[in-house]
Amino acid sequence: MVLKGNAIVGQSGGPTAAINATLSGVIRGALENENIETIFGMYHGIEGILNDSFCNLTEMFDDESKLVTLEKTPAAALGSCRKKLPSLTDMSDSDKAVYEKVFDFFKKHSIRYFFYIGGNDSMDTVAKLSAYSKTVDYEMRIMGVPKTIDNDVMGTDHTPGYGSAAKYIAASVSEMLRDCAVYTVKAVTIIEIMGRDAGWLTAAAALTRATGFEPDLIYLPERVFNYDEFFSDVRACLEKHPNVVVCVSEGIRLADGRYVGEGTQSGVADAFGHKYLSGTGKALELAVKEEIGCKVRSVELNILQRCASHIASLTDITESVAVGRAAVENAVNGVSGRMMTFVRTSNEPYNCVPRYEDIDKIANMVRTVPDSFINERGNGITDEGVKYLLPLIEGESYPEYKNGLPVHISLK
Amino acid sequence: MVLKGNAIVGQSGGPTAAINATLSGVIRGALENENIETIFGMYHGIEGILNDSFCNLTEMFDDESKLVTLEKTPAAALGSCRKKLPSLTDMSDSDKAVYEKVFDFFKKHSIRYFFYIGGNDSMDTVAKLSAYSKTVDYEMRIMGVPKTIDNDVMGTDHTPGYGSAAKYIAASVSEMLRDCAVYTVKAVTIIEIMGRDAGWLTAAAALTRATGFEPDLIYLPERVFNYDEFFSDVRACLEKHPNVVVCVSEGIRLADGRYVGEGTQSGVADAFGHKYLSGTGKALELAVKEEIGCKVRSVELNILQRCASHIASLTDITESVAVGRAAVENAVNGVSGRMMTFVRTSNEPYNCVPRYEDIDKIANMVRTVPDSFINERGNGITDEGVKYLLPLIEGESYPEYKNGLPVHISLK
Repeated sequence: MVLKGNAIVGQSGGPTAAINATLSGVIRGALENENIETIFGMYHGIEGILNDSFCNLTEMFDDESKLVTLEKTPAAALGSCRKKLPSLTDMSDSDKAVYEKVFDFFKKHSIRYFFYIGGNDSMDTVAKLSAYSKTVDYEMRIMGVPKTIDNDVMGTDHTPGYGSAAKYIAASVSEMLRDCAVYTVKAVTIIEIMGRDAGWLTAAAALTRATGFEPDLIYLPERVFNYDEFFSDVRACLEKHPNVVVCVSEGIRLADGRYVGEGTQSGVADAFGHKYLSGTGKALELAVKEEIGCKVRSVELNILQRCASHIASLTDITESVAVGRAAVENAVNGVSGRMMTFVRTSNEPYNCVPRYEDIDKIANMVRTVPDSFINERGNGITDEGVKYLLPLIEGESYPEYKNGLPVHISLK
Repeated sequence: MVLKGNAIVGQSGGPTAAINATLSGVIRGALENENIETIFGMYHGIEGILNDSFCNLTEMFDDESKLVTLEKTPAAALGSCRKKLPSLTDMSDSDKAVYEKVFDFFKKHSIRYFFYIGGNDSMDTVAKLSAYSKTVDYEMRIMGVPKTIDNDVMGTDHTPGYGSAAKYIAASVSEMLRDCAVYTVKAVTIIEIMGRDAGWLTAAAALTRATGFEPDLIYLPERVFNYDEFFSDVRACLEKHPNVVVCVSEGIRLADGRYVGEGTQSGVADAFGHKYLSGTGKALELAVKEEIGCKVRSVELNILQRCASHIASLTDITESVAVGRAAVENAVNGVSGRMMTFVRTSNEPYNCVPRYEDIDKIANMVRTVPDSFINERGNGITDEGVKYLLPLIEGESYPEYKNGLPVHISLK
């Protein structure tokens, strides 16, 4: 059961404000554990192993304050990748060579522990390495730790990184609601929020409810989007007050399956003759202008929502560190081929504990927003939804500031 | 010299994160001053006087903590307007009626002090009311207090509201630089920042310099934009590292005077047959895709940059309160028809004091970024520019949080 050796950790997939907090948790767990001698970091995920590009985190983090700064640094400090490992069935010689290279690297550096922090795609890497490890005579403990702002991973109450993105979104929407309210002229503001298949991030806009100001309409990809209903909803809101704010997921679709954002692409070419790829918010902006004719604008939160660590959720950062540390503890205790998860044991008071799940039960599936969180009309979030979301944005994880700006750490 | 009576304050023009701090300063100044009995607030600027829509701020702010919350609430808490008063020359009867209505309101409510917080256009209202007041037998003290994120007002070292917008921009760019750095694939990210005629806001992106990570290229409207130079600049940067970040003002123009954002409008129609109005960032995104062919995206900071009070500059908020209070003190001391300004008496250590200027010397002019702040190639900010900007973003003015979100105050 006891397995002594070195460990390696990597980050993969899109950035979040909390992925480095999980990295810090893994480093903390490794530094604390007597079975792990040195913890290495792969640069750019699994590519770092294939390219022999890595660093010694035990040496780098000789000081607690550096770990604290790491926890407040956005995006993947070790770099990321989108590399997919070859399928394990019917492997070609070059496919086999990839796995052999990875395990040669492990052996060469006496690595017995492999931690991979990433989203759905990254768990595929964990699953494959874990399966391959069973075919070779070199014991490895391989663990996945989820991160994604999208909150769409199965088997867990929520994902590390979601709470901070949700807090940024809700705070920004709250501020924009104030901004939009200053004039008396009828105007519609459409805020486009990330989320291709699941509406978790957009649902976070409803967290403004407790402030007494909230978006008038919220549309998620979990419901079919209908332009006629939308126009009717907007008109009804404009009757009540002049400034209507609409939040939409980028991934909302029409009944025929087309993305709303696709509407403005068809047949539209830019000055260079290219088809114009506009966003969902822009499509709705043009639609409102055409149909209702009032003042209208669209705002796309864009990549800011995944990297705004200056307003990270303290709950999220604390949990992200804890789940990284728990991954190490579990691995040392013999767990392998699993993804770390959260189980919410109580909502009032909120309590969540790290557990783990079989990766095979999780990979390649999307956890969408449950029906009970979406109102009947499909244009808003229920109080039950707000109640689930609220604890995830509680608390502020302030970075240190220097020269007026947050202090970040670089690992290269 | 001593003029006893009531006062009224209003807000006008676009929102900022500090316009309520100035409102708080005016309220504080009035509450403290024995010559002012009651301070009223106009709803939606001068329209509030014309529509008899106003409130009693003396009654509302019976508690210091409410003023503190006001100082951390974004956008104009009293509402705003874009109303322009009629010209004073060759007035029609209806024009005269407007001014008579305003002064009847003043007399009815024993108002002797008028404070107007706004940008360039709002100072026009102050100038006209001030000129008109000299033609009637009712003494008024009329003061303008500037606010604009654009920092383009003449006669002042900087404007209240700019520092907070600059801090949000620099912090967001700093976080996006981290976000963009995680992959190894060549990619260009174009960040569009507000500023039609002056590049102050975009220049703030250079404040990231002290962090060791800064945008590769910065283009301001103060320089003619040239596509060939731009492509050559981007190519040179891509040779150095894979992730190139470009910050541009929305108002950059070509040699023939056309806005860069206009390029994608000509001849391009959306699904509804409308001409497509895209932004400057989108135009450059398409241009890079066409000419260089690498991965490219654009991000528009949009209205977030003017209302993000959760990361307001403490320097800005403190000064904004101080300048509001100073406006009251000066008015009580006999000053009228002036706009409050800042004079920087020292840069190291930074010290700035409120003064005032003749509005006629200020109105309808734009203060652009000086030559010495822009590098020779016109694609970056000099250290001299950074030195001027840095003190304005120093310090953090954190709001109180409740339910995970900043607490704001409503005055309606």
